[in-house]
Amino acid sequence: MKRELEPFWVSGFTDGEGTFYVGINKNTEMTAGFQVLPEFRIVQHEKDIKLLYKLKSFFGCGVVRKNHDTRYEVRIRKIEHLAKIIIPFFIKHPLQTQKKHDFLKFRKVVLLIEKGEHLTRDGIDKILSIAKKMNRKEKLRTIENFKNKFG
Amino acid sequence: MKRELEPFWVSGFTDGEGTFYVGINKNTEMTAGFQVLPEFRIVQHEKDIKLLYKLKSFFGCGVVRKNHDTRYEVRIRKIEHLAKIIIPFFIKHPLQTQKKHDFLKFRKVVLLIEKGEHLTRDGIDKILSIAKKMNRKEKLRTIENFKNKFG
Repeated sequence: MKRELEPFWVSGFTDGEGTFYVGINKNTEMTAGFQVLPEFRIVQHEKDIKLLYKLKSFFGCGVVRKNHDTRYEVRIRKIEHLAKIIIPFFIKHPLQTQKKHDFLKFRKVVLLIEKGEHLTRDGIDKILSIAKKMNRKEKLRTIENFKNKFG
Repeated sequence: MKRELEPFWVSGFTDGEGTFYVGINKNTEMTAGFQVLPEFRIVQHEKDIKLLYKLKSFFGCGVVRKNHDTRYEVRIRKIEHLAKIIIPFFIKHPLQTQKKHDFLKFRKVVLLIEKGEHLTRDGIDKILSIAKKMNRKEKLRTIENFKNKFG
């Protein structure tokens, strides 16, 4: 018997364990010279890999992959899935920690990409200035790399 | 306007951030020579201290205290509150990660204390053997200390 996850449980678990991440990579094949990769993910120790598959099935999108060492993740990268499934879900089942501010910035980036603004240098600048204000340590690291490499 | 937390959000957040902990300390004033201190807690960075107060208000018990450095915790230690509020809550709104096994062991310990078994050496042995199987690294550390000091 399959046990469904409760929507608010998913919201609470995301407040603890989820990451809204915006990756920015140099890519000369893109018009603006950069590729923007927003990603929502939840990482767990492999002992909870079944839960990652439950989350994938809950959202009806995403993939389960190895993250690092004994850690696995469920991650959603497709803009359509982020815009039509993930973002509306967290609007309806709001985060309660300061992570909600990351989510709101993430949402802005996804909306800009939906409008195709990531294909212009102006759009990329806008996205970078939003991403800069995101709290995640790894995000800050990415921006430092970005600046060091391309700044 | 006060915003209430959703019960399942609290369960999901606990799966990510909560700890069910059983402390065991030597205490010569206790009949069995040991004091058993079960504790449920959620630790957050000080930027989310308001959420800890919301959790305290949600459960209607506990205290908010400094944990370490820039971290604060809401914690519940009173056996009555653990037995009558916390444990029934997580039976009704079940954990989904492997932490649920810690919770079930924690529950056993609280039930043993309610029956007064922690006042006998046999009861303490029973509690120790349950606590030993709990997953938390810090728990294992405590047992090692226990063994080194009193074993």
